[in-house]
Amino acid sequence: MNLKKMVGIEAAKYIQNDMIVGLGTGSTAYYMVEEIGRRVREENLTIIGVTTSSKTTEQAKRLGIPLKSIDEVSHVDITIDGADEIDEKYNGIKGGGAALLFEKIVASYSNKIIWIVDESKMSRYLGSFPLPVEVIPYGSHQLLTLFEKKNLHPVLRIDSDGQPIKTDCHNFIIDLHLEKIEKPAELSAWLNQLPGVVEHGIFENMVSTIIIGSNDGLKTIQAR
Amino acid sequence: MNLKKMVGIEAAKYIQNDMIVGLGTGSTAYYMVEEIGRRVREENLTIIGVTTSSKTTEQAKRLGIPLKSIDEVSHVDITIDGADEIDEKYNGIKGGGAALLFEKIVASYSNKIIWIVDESKMSRYLGSFPLPVEVIPYGSHQLLTLFEKKNLHPVLRIDSDGQPIKTDCHNFIIDLHLEKIEKPAELSAWLNQLPGVVEHGIFENMVSTIIIGSNDGLKTIQAR
Repeated sequence: MNLKKMVGIEAAKYIQNDMIVGLGTGSTAYYMVEEIGRRVREENLTIIGVTTSSKTTEQAKRLGIPLKSIDEVSHVDITIDGADEIDEKYNGIKGGGAALLFEKIVASYSNKIIWIVDESKMSRYLGSFPLPVEVIPYGSHQLLTLFEKKNLHPVLRIDSDGQPIKTDCHNFIIDLHLEKIEKPAELSAWLNQLPGVVEHGIFENMVSTIIIGSNDGLKTIQAR
Repeated sequence: MNLKKMVGIEAAKYIQNDMIVGLGTGSTAYYMVEEIGRRVREENLTIIGVTTSSKTTEQAKRLGIPLKSIDEVSHVDITIDGADEIDEKYNGIKGGGAALLFEKIVASYSNKIIWIVDESKMSRYLGSFPLPVEVIPYGSHQLLTLFEKKNLHPVLRIDSDGQPIKTDCHNFIIDLHLEKIEKPAELSAWLNQLPGVVEHGIFENMVSTIIIGSNDGLKTIQAR
């Protein structure tokens, strides 16, 4: 079975009636959203979804999942999302799908966060997956130059037409090809204080449960 | 004489031929931009302007000041801008005009920064001027709630139609009515790491020269 589908279906089991559920974005989260849609339709599951991208909003609407904005709910019970890389301390990199900003906003108001991944995403250190940084277009070239000078190996993410991709907030994404992030907390704080940096893909101390799919089956880790 | 006009004209004297000049935004910066425009027209001053808002861009174009984006220049020689409040250590609050994001971006690439103010802006501590925080609309209500809980007295800035004002990057502004900011560096770091906060109006250790207008005349301070 498709590993992404397997963890997506497993994660959807955590959802119970009357929950407010953060719905992640990406190729793994896709299957979780599909499964929640199936449960809403076939099992009369009653939830409210809070989405993390325009893409997931479209999918959830198509499936008939009732939605509210993060600003229309008091809290989120569980957010289920993918992750691009997870280190030994259960910090993660997210943003391969360019939805890191809304993903981090929704995650920060969530009581419980579940990440669903295949085993290839587990890593000793973060950094083999390029770190996405969401930046204001005005000044983005200056940031590229600054990142170059600091040897952070930045690449402006472009679409198939060669144009900078635009996030749901009309920002650009710069991917930092770091190979190994020794001190995620320091890098995070430095990026946070840079004018023009809106958000970055390091998710520290956020995840509660990790569901990992492998060809041998499922493994669930309680991270905190 | 109008104090704002007086300091605006004085600051424009710092500009020499071939400089790349950051042009601030607001009611005091307005007079500086007008004076630079006059010098371009009447004295053949040759500069390139880098603006900090769509409003200043409009004004500079009307005056015939040649402009480039911050991403088309290697650096900025001098940025001249107003400030809403300046403390004894020459930290400032900016953003009363909602242009703090581009102002901070341009300032961060400037070799020299001049602030022009009237004496009413000088203060022992920051905080009597409400601190503007630029936030992503998605999640802004959650941030308002969080700021309330932390006793930061947040007010969402609205326009004359009662709608949230939108910055040049389509974000909202939340003003924190703090009265007194004891530790600007701590508050700044805390705000920077909040998902959904794009930028805030504390400008620490940035200004080089402050030109203060009073009814007794001009005073110039070398801050660093």
